[in-house]
Amino acid sequence: MRALLFDVFGTVVDWRGGVAREAAPFLARHGADNADPFVFADAWRRRYQPAMEAVRNGRRPFTRLDVLHRENLAAILPDFGIDPVRVPAVELDELNLAWHRLDPWPDAVAGLTRLKRRYIIAPLSNGNIALLLNMAKRAGLPWDAILGAEVAQAYKPTPESYLRTADILALRPHELCLVAAHNGDLAAARSCGFKTAFVPRPTEHEAGQTIDLHPEQNWDVIADDFGALAGKLGL
Amino acid sequence: MRALLFDVFGTVVDWRGGVAREAAPFLARHGADNADPFVFADAWRRRYQPAMEAVRNGRRPFTRLDVLHRENLAAILPDFGIDPVRVPAVELDELNLAWHRLDPWPDAVAGLTRLKRRYIIAPLSNGNIALLLNMAKRAGLPWDAILGAEVAQAYKPTPESYLRTADILALRPHELCLVAAHNGDLAAARSCGFKTAFVPRPTEHEAGQTIDLHPEQNWDVIADDFGALAGKLGL
Repeated sequence: MRALLFDVFGTVVDWRGGVAREAAPFLARHGADNADPFVFADAWRRRYQPAMEAVRNGRRPFTRLDVLHRENLAAILPDFGIDPVRVPAVELDELNLAWHRLDPWPDAVAGLTRLKRRYIIAPLSNGNIALLLNMAKRAGLPWDAILGAEVAQAYKPTPESYLRTADILALRPHELCLVAAHNGDLAAARSCGFKTAFVPRPTEHEAGQTIDLHPEQNWDVIADDFGALAGKLGL
Repeated sequence: MRALLFDVFGTVVDWRGGVAREAAPFLARHGADNADPFVFADAWRRRYQPAMEAVRNGRRPFTRLDVLHRENLAAILPDFGIDPVRVPAVELDELNLAWHRLDPWPDAVAGLTRLKRRYIIAPLSNGNIALLLNMAKRAGLPWDAILGAEVAQAYKPTPESYLRTADILALRPHELCLVAAHNGDLAAARSCGFKTAFVPRPTEHEAGQTIDLHPEQNWDVIADDFGALAGKLGL
């Protein structure tokens, strides 16, 4: 194993808390102070997979996630009683950057720093390069490189997203390990020959989260957080 | 200014010394012990621009630098009395990785570490991602991201190589500064609206180097090394 590649949204950072934090003052400013900012975060995120699906199935050329997030933001505003054409574009652009300012889970920076001593560490995320880079710079995530969908020009979980990343690194798939909190991502990576590490994040979703609490396959490593992952890898 | 993008071969690392260091035992093993490994490094590097030119002018699809280096290596061996088909491919593959193991100039790591406090720092090199990443991991170059020709799918000094990099970072060209030891690279970046910083590397080429000893335009910053560059930027 030479490189550890990380899913980011949910695995490294708390997207739901971060988006809700930035949405709250926006909602208040636009008369939606009764809206729950966590419900707003969930609504925004619900359009994430369908937007990427248009790229995956070829209906649309590869389009970076910042653009998809921005379209999805405009699309959900009416559900919260906000008319998107009455909000200055610059304000929507700014709120869209909430995804660049997500906080890491408390164990992430220290765990990555340990893992980096022996392995190449990089995101393999559907986030675009600028998003992942700005996030890392703000949060101190010590990536060796910024990889993922934009570099591979393919969204997870297509095989291309994993296999092109291996090719770019000039490594064979079995020399790579995907670290993710999502069984589906790990299953797709395993199908491409990657090693797999499951780190559950039981507070990613709403209270009473029911998915991805447990490993659904015999993943190569299962660890409670990135510190435990480093420990299991002998670091 | 938000990001400093660095030319790498010659500006951050000593390609000539590094390639010569790895070529010496190879030449000795193959009966070319009289060959000067620095002459070998120069011969290899002489085919660098022509190989990329085939990509730039569209005669060939984008091809990463590791592949071009490998072809160029096979091409120069006869000039040193070595028949490339009699050398095991694995040995040529290994020598080709000399470009992944170049040493930084003595001021580079400390200077980059200072510059990283305020700016995004990343290579904007014609080297491919794996080459630049392996180099950084070995040498401790603290890049925030690995950018360059492979990410932009265009070789410097085409405008696309600079402008696509700005677009990927979601920054305007004037928010970026190219740092390079080569006036030609800086001129191309300036034409695209980048800020420019010239750091001469008078020992990049053979003793008696005649090119790129002095600034050929009024570059935005001129500094003797990366420490001086950090000082001039107030870090």
